Amino acid sequence: MKRKDIAKKYFRCTNAERAAFEAGIKLGTVYHQFVGTPLSLENVDSLEKAMEASLKVQPFVKDARVRIDRNRITKKSGFYKYLTLEGSMLDVELEVQYEDKLAICKLEYVEDMKYPLMYIKEIKDCKE
Amino acid sequence: MKRKDIAKKYFRCTNAERAAFEAGIKLGTVYHQFVGTPLSLENVDSLEKAMEASLKVQPFVKDARVRIDRNRITKKSGFYKYLTLEGSMLDVELEVQYEDKLAICKLEYVEDMKYPLMYIKEIKDCKE
Amino acid sequence: MKRKDIAKKYFRCTNAERAAFEAGIKLGTVYHQFVGTPLSLENVDSLEKAMEASLKVQPFVKDARVRIDRNRITKKSGFYKYLTLEGSMLDVELEVQYEDKLAICKLEYVEDMKYPLMYIKEIKDCKE
Amino acid sequence: MKRKDIAKKYFRCTNAERAAFEAGIKLGTVYHQFVGTPLSLENVDSLEKAMEASLKVQPFVKDARVRIDRNRITKKSGFYKYLTLEGSMLDVELEVQYEDKLAICKLEYVEDMKYPLMYIKEIKDCKE
Repeated sequence: MKRKDIAKKYFRCTNAERAAFEAGIKLGTVYHQFVGTPLSLENVDSLEKAMEASLKVQPFVKDARVRIDRNRITKKSGFYKYLTLEGSMLDVELEVQYEDKLAICKLEYVEDMKYPLMYIKEIKDCKE
Repeated sequence: MKRKDIAKKYFRCTNAERAAFEAGIKLGTVYHQFVGTPLSLENVDSLEKAMEASLKVQPFVKDARVRIDRNRITKKSGFYKYLTLEGSMLDVELEVQYEDKLAICKLEYVEDMKYPLMYIKEIKDCKE
Repeated sequence: MKRKDIAKKYFRCTNAERAAFEAGIKLGTVYHQFVGTPLSLENVDSLEKAMEASLKVQPFVKDARVRIDRNRITKKSGFYKYLTLEGSMLDVELEVQYEDKLAICKLEYVEDMKYPLMYIKEIKDCKE
Repeated sequence: MKRKDIAKKYFRCTNAERAAFEAGIKLGTVYHQFVGTPLSLENVDSLEKAMEASLKVQPFVKDARVRIDRNRITKKSGFYKYLTLEGSMLDVELEVQYEDKLAICKLEYVEDMKYPLMYIKEIKDCKE
């Protein structure tokens, strides 16, 4: 049984545009909520899991995967060995479905641009 | 003279979908970056200005306006008088232009839903 | 073998004051990093674990425990059923050791004050 | 006239330890609330002001000054020209008074340690 979107009346756009909008919200959210979190090899697994799970509870998210680049977590010794999470360490794959449209999106660091780019890989039809 | 979008090759979508996606990113960002900020009547003006300005430096943002509901900032006395910013206090208007498309979006608290809703008011043609 | 604190020369204070300062940093960090995170009964466990783990990687943290009040996570149905983490849902216990001093601290919502209070329960001697 | 600290009964520590603890909270807060904020030369002034003002509304803060290193904000052109605020760009001076004690603290990037260090410069007596 389909759930009804009680906010639909507020939107003036196509289902594909809505899917794109919702995907953008989630990528902006995961980036700006978690960038800055204290990070070392000891908590990287739990942070990835929490980020992924925080994506999945949001409306219209069909799937999400978060990876933090372990090569960027240098092994320093001593008290000040940890880092804080930076956007450039992130690789996020996200699928957002709005009714009959599925937006497949990604956040990854693009070396050429020196920029953690959020982009739409594809918007396609899907079964509701 | 138009600036070229060097990331365009990564996207598989229409200009309108792109405008919607970029608007979603900005709304997710402003919410999750600033929710939690210590807040009283003394710093509400500077926080609004900083939020607005942080929207305007992001790609494709044509205009942005942020208002924090002062009625929600109760006048308490004593040391513990301040609050922290909640999403339900926010009213954000945002215009994002991607090439020939303009997405006009809003974040506002919707009483019926008990939810700070981000939505697309309109996507329309515009001059590049 | 004890690790040396290479930052010690920057500080003009006692070990007990240092322990209190370091504990304050960690409590401010965990609050302002994570408040605003999307939250439902489905991701509350992973978020607690990530918060706890992010405390434990920071310097001088001996132990940490984070609990999010599940009674505050109402079971709503539909797309907009999740919340965002608020400071008033948090219960954090934290032990910070600096050399021979141990600061035992807490963050909890104090009903009388309507305030998520961070406080020092005790600072005591301990073995290095 | 002095304001009374209604939370005092929760604390088991000296006034100097309390001042140190409160200063730590504020430094952890300002770092983890604002790191990740979109940043360019166009919004750096408003962001500094908002950070400073958000420190000053918190309990026991007597004075605060925030500087963001403009040399770290490279002038890139095009849409993706902005950065996000990093801890290593920050220079924060903070004075926290608890009753008869004043803690003078700082957050600055320490080149030797490759670390944005928060430290106590001095805790001294002051008039209430």
